[in-house]
Amino acid sequence: MTELILTTLDWVPEFPRGFVRDLRIRWALEEADIPYQIATTPVGDAEARLPFQPFGQVPWLTDGDITIFESGAILLYLGEGSTALMPADRPGRAKVMEWLFAALNSVEMPAVPWSLYRWADDETQSPARAHLERFLDGRLNHMEAVLAKGDWLTGPFSIADIAMSDVLRQLRSYDVFAKRPACQHYVERATARPAFKKAYADQIAHFEAADVERTARSE
Amino acid sequence: MTELILTTLDWVPEFPRGFVRDLRIRWALEEADIPYQIATTPVGDAEARLPFQPFGQVPWLTDGDITIFESGAILLYLGEGSTALMPADRPGRAKVMEWLFAALNSVEMPAVPWSLYRWADDETQSPARAHLERFLDGRLNHMEAVLAKGDWLTGPFSIADIAMSDVLRQLRSYDVFAKRPACQHYVERATARPAFKKAYADQIAHFEAADVERTARSE
Repeated sequence: MTELILTTLDWVPEFPRGFVRDLRIRWALEEADIPYQIATTPVGDAEARLPFQPFGQVPWLTDGDITIFESGAILLYLGEGSTALMPADRPGRAKVMEWLFAALNSVEMPAVPWSLYRWADDETQSPARAHLERFLDGRLNHMEAVLAKGDWLTGPFSIADIAMSDVLRQLRSYDVFAKRPACQHYVERATARPAFKKAYADQIAHFEAADVERTARSE
Repeated sequence: MTELILTTLDWVPEFPRGFVRDLRIRWALEEADIPYQIATTPVGDAEARLPFQPFGQVPWLTDGDITIFESGAILLYLGEGSTALMPADRPGRAKVMEWLFAALNSVEMPAVPWSLYRWADDETQSPARAHLERFLDGRLNHMEAVLAKGDWLTGPFSIADIAMSDVLRQLRSYDVFAKRPACQHYVERATARPAFKKAYADQIAHFEAADVERTARSE
């Protein structure tokens, strides 16, 4: 078996560190105890990424002849090879698949656009913004009810929890959890897992090493 | 084998007809020539749907003891059972999975929030809105380059094309295709398929039958 290669950016500014989406993949690989190498692509050269990632983004995973992009698809690809990430039986797989898509298509869909208002420090009120806020609030209220019922979404921890907790984690600084303790405790449980901590520390270390290299080059 | 049951709303107003997400599932079932029954849930009673769909939405699919929600997950579940929807080999599956997630997490993510401005007839300009428009434009520009290369995303038609063309189709009335002929022709190719036409006509007929019943009840 050839070793898996996870490609991410060679450098990013401080702000997105700890949130670049290779984190989801690092986390899954740590949970499943699968060895992997990191490869990099220059942050400023989106064009060079297009043959591997058609939107010019990261991450992508290389497994011998197969190259796969989209963090959700990579999680599922890895999940098919490890019961630490997804059960092998059809009912168990179905549950993980529905919650994986729920994280990325039902919760992240309003979460990322809503974050644009925060990133831009944009206080402009408008009917569409009100719709978006109701959309996100509704999704989070439903998640609060779901997450109050158990530790993980589908019984055992799975790739669905990696995706969902990573989506919710990105909202943490925006105060949406004050009235949603189940969401908050879920994110705390997920990020307390040794595999998350290792993945997070590795991503931070990767970009810090790039800082050192940049500074050395510019001196 | 028990017959599959696809649950959708009992009635919706004119506006969303032809776009309710059971359409994606009807379409896949027609492509794979799998028989199914339609069941309904009262449009006004989201609470009653929560045991099957945790956000109170539709559709969900029942396959004997398995019930599965999220249109992306249902497409994948059906794809695993039919090579008319997804190849069975690992490299082919990986390609379909990455493009299925790309449709729902990379393209639909800015498309739906952007639609909120159109639905609300909201002309308010703001920095976040400008970000969102650049986000969507960027994704569509990349899709234009991809779709200029071939008829379907991964070689043969697949569930990835059902998801991607359905996401793009919802933007058609918003004039984003004027400068993107490859996107436009792709949507035209997809919606010309007999399976799409059957699925679309069946959804329209389903809601029209509900109109007749409502009228009869109110007389």
